[in-house]
Amino acid sequence: MNYKSVFNILGRILIVEAGLMAVSAAVSLIYRESILSFLFAILIAAAAGAVLCVLPGKREQIYAREGFVIVALSWVTMSAVGALPFFLSGHIPSFIDAFFETVSGFTTTGSTILTNVEVMPYGLLFWRSFTHWVGGMGVLVFVLAIIPMIGTRSVHLMRAEVPGPTKGKLVPKMKSTAMILYGIYVILTAAEVIFLVAGGMPLFDALVHSFGSAGTGGFSIKNKSIEYYGSAYIETVIGVFVILFGINFNIYFLLLIKEFKSIFKNEELRLYLCIIAVSVIIITFDIMKIFGTVGSSLRYAFFQVASIITTTGYSSINFDLWPSLSRYILVLLMFAGACAGSTGGGLKTSRLIILFKSIRREIRKLLHPRSVNIIEMDDKVVDESIVGGTTVYFVAYMLVLLLSVFFVSFDGYDLETTTTAVISCISNIGPGLNLVGPAGNFSIFSPGSKVLLSLVMLIGRLEIYPVLMLFLPATWRRKM
Amino acid sequence: MNYKSVFNILGRILIVEAGLMAVSAAVSLIYRESILSFLFAILIAAAAGAVLCVLPGKREQIYAREGFVIVALSWVTMSAVGALPFFLSGHIPSFIDAFFETVSGFTTTGSTILTNVEVMPYGLLFWRSFTHWVGGMGVLVFVLAIIPMIGTRSVHLMRAEVPGPTKGKLVPKMKSTAMILYGIYVILTAAEVIFLVAGGMPLFDALVHSFGSAGTGGFSIKNKSIEYYGSAYIETVIGVFVILFGINFNIYFLLLIKEFKSIFKNEELRLYLCIIAVSVIIITFDIMKIFGTVGSSLRYAFFQVASIITTTGYSSINFDLWPSLSRYILVLLMFAGACAGSTGGGLKTSRLIILFKSIRREIRKLLHPRSVNIIEMDDKVVDESIVGGTTVYFVAYMLVLLLSVFFVSFDGYDLETTTTAVISCISNIGPGLNLVGPAGNFSIFSPGSKVLLSLVMLIGRLEIYPVLMLFLPATWRRKM
Repeated sequence: MNYKSVFNILGRILIVEAGLMAVSAAVSLIYRESILSFLFAILIAAAAGAVLCVLPGKREQIYAREGFVIVALSWVTMSAVGALPFFLSGHIPSFIDAFFETVSGFTTTGSTILTNVEVMPYGLLFWRSFTHWVGGMGVLVFVLAIIPMIGTRSVHLMRAEVPGPTKGKLVPKMKSTAMILYGIYVILTAAEVIFLVAGGMPLFDALVHSFGSAGTGGFSIKNKSIEYYGSAYIETVIGVFVILFGINFNIYFLLLIKEFKSIFKNEELRLYLCIIAVSVIIITFDIMKIFGTVGSSLRYAFFQVASIITTTGYSSINFDLWPSLSRYILVLLMFAGACAGSTGGGLKTSRLIILFKSIRREIRKLLHPRSVNIIEMDDKVVDESIVGGTTVYFVAYMLVLLLSVFFVSFDGYDLETTTTAVISCISNIGPGLNLVGPAGNFSIFSPGSKVLLSLVMLIGRLEIYPVLMLFLPATWRRKM
Repeated sequence: MNYKSVFNILGRILIVEAGLMAVSAAVSLIYRESILSFLFAILIAAAAGAVLCVLPGKREQIYAREGFVIVALSWVTMSAVGALPFFLSGHIPSFIDAFFETVSGFTTTGSTILTNVEVMPYGLLFWRSFTHWVGGMGVLVFVLAIIPMIGTRSVHLMRAEVPGPTKGKLVPKMKSTAMILYGIYVILTAAEVIFLVAGGMPLFDALVHSFGSAGTGGFSIKNKSIEYYGSAYIETVIGVFVILFGINFNIYFLLLIKEFKSIFKNEELRLYLCIIAVSVIIITFDIMKIFGTVGSSLRYAFFQVASIITTTGYSSINFDLWPSLSRYILVLLMFAGACAGSTGGGLKTSRLIILFKSIRREIRKLLHPRSVNIIEMDDKVVDESIVGGTTVYFVAYMLVLLLSVFFVSFDGYDLETTTTAVISCISNIGPGLNLVGPAGNFSIFSPGSKVLLSLVMLIGRLEIYPVLMLFLPATWRRKM
């Protein structure tokens, strides 16, 4: 392990985080709230960052191993330090709770341990939602710029290979890739804020809810989430925007370079939109027995499907009271997740495509043992290392899920609560069903379970392996 | 598709089934019950079998495709015809219910739609349990003799490759392999009957419960299953025997040829026993709050763990009333299942080993991108086609599971009932939790769900692909 470089980068990240907290402190100032806890946190972050930056040691080349470790550690460190304002202000008296809340923020999960969010000061509410926005940005850069550089097997960038010669010029380096991503991200967020304010939402509310949409996070500043506003317009705006944030950002690249044909042919985008449409239709019919009219059923179904498949997790109604079929469809959407290369979590639509095609191929092989079978996507051959990596990823995902449920079930809650809590965390959704449904929260769990669930959120967000690596002795050896 | 050969073999199987039903009719005679329904069923089976055998057409070579189709169709046909005695006698008035019950028998699942099994005549009870025994035999031959011949990728026979030169002489042909398997199977069953009768169980009860153990099926002739006997001795005997039937039958080959060293080194066997031990210990501690003493907690924990991991499904107590942790461990065991090459269902222990090692390898690859990684089991390299096939198998297994829950949830039962019902069927267990727990049964489901669950049992039993193949048009084309 190349410690010097790892510490150096972590140090810089902490200094950036100090700056981000300063923005939140400024919000506190505007609302004339105490900024003492923010000042302490900023000081700690800046000091720790500076120390890490000047630590002695030889800087060496960064390899894949260091890359993954940096990613995993930076998310953990940012969460630990980002928890300080909540903890130091006394608004979240337990550090584990504050850590859980901040991990939930940076991983853009949106699960909360707060039983009454409306009593929190503006500055902390802003910081809480700001972590979503920053986390979403971090994820985009991680999956679209870092993974392709350090790992060889990525389902996220497959689409970007399509466009042809122009693409090469557009994104020659990681830095410019990141800048373009940030640009799209900022513009989309700003557009959502404008639409929400136009619908009568206060600016502060519009800002934090747009942060939550952009990162597909889902923290709300109202106990009843979006239901509080009781506005079909607001629900439609948020629903549409989370769907946009759940699309592979490569698609926006393609839009920029006017490759409309590639967009139209994109299998992931088509399946993603198709899943949304089918789910909305089935749920609409299923919940008609509750809401009576097609209109209101469609409204609730659309918002909830958009919110869950994109792994945002806002609710516009207590969907835990819906019939089994609708609730189960939402659970399936939690597994599926949004498109690869978006801010959404879950398995990702492009992985689903590869998994389906792997099964089809397996059956074909049995029918015609000697035939050669390749898997294609968007008319291009998918590399076998990606196919193999995807199936193993699914296995790892399910294994982490099943084992985590095992440990959390020591708390003794019913299986539906426990299982959906873990699914919600690993797919970075927010709410689950039953006790962790839209009307509940994660405060019920023991400190041990909260730490584990924080880890599960990180595992899900960082595509499993970087976090698991932290627990391998081999990762920490000086020499490879 | 080579129809002539397929029909011919199906015809022979039906004639054998007629013979098997004749045995059950004889039991009816002993107990002076009406054998009219059996006579009709035997006649239909024999006639249909004879017709299929003499159908005109050219007999051609059998390929993999035909092999899988024969296996899938024979299980379906045997179940449809085997349902006749239940249906014609009027004891199960709905044919779909009778079909479900018989599929559950032949697939050695043990899920029942009967609300009161104790009112059934002896002949039908015997036939019902006999299907378990026959099904278990069929599965052994399928996974240990047929799959290795027609398919290239099998986790079931890996152990048999270990012994070395002596093995070749022991099993030169499929026919003798089958004979040895049948021998072991019959001897173990007979031993269990003797032990049970020695413990005071009536001979009839001992026979049917041994059939249920041997096939790891789980149909009981008592509404309260093994709890009826209230005997720690009987529970211990059955518990030990189901564990024996859940071991890869290759291990018994190795015993026969005195390859004790290979047995000791067998990773699957060690993990299987290890999972049983750990589960029993945790559950014992967890249910102490109910039963008070270590003794009775251990007794119930051991029996239930043995019964569930081997996918038998007998119960010695209503484990649905146990704490969440214990109930969840049982659900995990339902996924895991017994050893490959046994009569048990589920994913199989050797698949779990390969899945774990695949994940470990994936992380290693990320740490050392240029290193060559192979997966070993029992000190032998596992072929990459088996590794890839195993991960895709897991994906297919989970996908069938998740989609089936979707369709069954149209019935509107709670998610725990629906999910565990499907897990129980795909892993060929028997009971699930909640409404399909040991105190419930599968009669609650709609006819559509019963047909789907029957299909799910067949899918799980026949290792997924043969049944899925039946739905592909390509399977039915005359030419490949």
